[in-house]
Amino acid sequence: MNVPSTIRWERERLAVLDQRLLPSTVEYLEINSVDQAVAAIRSLAVRGAPAIGIAAAYALAVSVRAAPPAEFESTLHASAAALKGARPTAVNLAWAVDRLLAKAVAVPGYRALAVEAELIHQEDRASCRAIGEAGLPLISPGSRILTHCNAGALAVSELGTATAPLYLSHSSGTPFHVYVDETRPLLQGARMTAWELSRAGIDVTLLCDSAAASLMGTGGIDLVLVGTDRVTANGDVVNKIGTLNLAVLCSYFGIPFYVACPSSTFDPATSRGADVIIENRDSAEIIGSHTAQVAAYNPAFDVTPAHLVTGFITDRGLLESPAETALNDHFIEAGTP
Amino acid sequence: MNVPSTIRWERERLAVLDQRLLPSTVEYLEINSVDQAVAAIRSLAVRGAPAIGIAAAYALAVSVRAAPPAEFESTLHASAAALKGARPTAVNLAWAVDRLLAKAVAVPGYRALAVEAELIHQEDRASCRAIGEAGLPLISPGSRILTHCNAGALAVSELGTATAPLYLSHSSGTPFHVYVDETRPLLQGARMTAWELSRAGIDVTLLCDSAAASLMGTGGIDLVLVGTDRVTANGDVVNKIGTLNLAVLCSYFGIPFYVACPSSTFDPATSRGADVIIENRDSAEIIGSHTAQVAAYNPAFDVTPAHLVTGFITDRGLLESPAETALNDHFIEAGTP
Repeated sequence: MNVPSTIRWERERLAVLDQRLLPSTVEYLEINSVDQAVAAIRSLAVRGAPAIGIAAAYALAVSVRAAPPAEFESTLHASAAALKGARPTAVNLAWAVDRLLAKAVAVPGYRALAVEAELIHQEDRASCRAIGEAGLPLISPGSRILTHCNAGALAVSELGTATAPLYLSHSSGTPFHVYVDETRPLLQGARMTAWELSRAGIDVTLLCDSAAASLMGTGGIDLVLVGTDRVTANGDVVNKIGTLNLAVLCSYFGIPFYVACPSSTFDPATSRGADVIIENRDSAEIIGSHTAQVAAYNPAFDVTPAHLVTGFITDRGLLESPAETALNDHFIEAGTP
Repeated sequence: MNVPSTIRWERERLAVLDQRLLPSTVEYLEINSVDQAVAAIRSLAVRGAPAIGIAAAYALAVSVRAAPPAEFESTLHASAAALKGARPTAVNLAWAVDRLLAKAVAVPGYRALAVEAELIHQEDRASCRAIGEAGLPLISPGSRILTHCNAGALAVSELGTATAPLYLSHSSGTPFHVYVDETRPLLQGARMTAWELSRAGIDVTLLCDSAAASLMGTGGIDLVLVGTDRVTANGDVVNKIGTLNLAVLCSYFGIPFYVACPSSTFDPATSRGADVIIENRDSAEIIGSHTAQVAAYNPAFDVTPAHLVTGFITDRGLLESPAETALNDHFIEAGTP
């Protein structure tokens, strides 16, 4: 794999790959405080639900490193609240922070938190590999797969989520072709997914988001594979704006629509997608000197109803019947998240 | 109406508004030769099916102005072939050129061709007004209308096609809101439609193409209104890439999907959309220094099957049952195009 690490934790110093500069510049941002971590998450320097969770976990540990014992608890809770508020939609963020808070109750102090953050990071790598293995049977020689945004190595660690089956298939010598939506407004597909897949030697074609219908309608796509920021209890999928669009198209054109995610993305506490607060981002992402000066509608995510999802590709296997009970059994049985 | 003319024909000199520079710069390109006209059409300096037809008609007349009588016919046919080849998908282009060729057979010479081109231009203005009147009943107080690309005044003349009902409704004091897809890759929605509608005082919100599903899914759209470059005999609609996407979404969400066009856009000689050659544009429209260096899929148009079209808004009235016979009766009965 020829993709730089999204999150670097070396000699207990945290740095994140600044994804705003890709693909032209590969540069790391050092994170020495919670404020820096929040800024990096808000500005999408670090992005992708699992990566945000890992970065937040390390940042939380870092934030209490220098705190006197008497201030450990107050610092910890202030940092946790700030981190959780950085991007409300990604469930992994709150999940990772809560996991460290629970650890701190059992074993207070920086050391235990740093080890717990490392553990989350290691588990994520293992989870990506498991997702890759679960999704492998969906890719046949000659498959034409469409993906959206970046649920790749850059969003997570090592293999990515939606990209994990692609990387493993490619390693095993299966020939296939990936179409990547450019993913407006921030072009994560054009800047990140197309970049990391092509660097790994996979055949990639980029298209405008609105061209997916034409490509599907002319028989050019066999499978759609996306990631997700949150799966609610009923199986609704919260993911990058444009995902619902693809799911509706897949339903119309009879194309399988799969969602890849680790168990930590499942949120049994939220009953349905409509209950998730969707982040509305700055209109400056759309409106500029090249456009008319008008209002903008710019939600970061949309909600795909469960019935449009063919299946979930998870670190615990392939789940083809995503009904509520099945989801709960599948994601929760093993005791985490 | 506060929108500059797309095509200027003053003292028999042809100039087209350079739409590549909008909205920051309003500048006209003089067209003194067929080569200049072809370049202006190919580069999208002039765009929109009816506008291309009008510009080509004037350019064809201009091309024979200086030709000696002995070379009139050869010049005419060479110019006609070059113009028709400039953008093969827009049926109005071939239609306007053929109309001038027929005129030249009846009355040879520059003068008759210039008058015929002026007539096409005048008819287009009248046709836009008729489209506006036909579409007026679809817009109620409070309507939220989504449109794609630019089927506006800039694409045509005076009122536009898909925009004509909007301009007339606005003039009559009806309050409504227009959502405009930015329309990648060339952003005609962001640069042109949002600009011309907001200049006219209409409430406009811009969105990324892939956000339409989210907006529809949350109940934010009552009606979709688009233009078209060609309607085939069976009612299939060839229009800007992304139109099929909207039509499928409308079908899924139960939203009316209307296509506005003059009769000259109807092409009874082509039986169905699949028979239309779709122009594939340069990958440089998508691939740049900000993206990975990969292949691109960049068709300019897509084909929306007739069964997804709720109705056609034409200069001959509203056609709500676009079956093949109805289309032929509706478009051809009056003898043109």
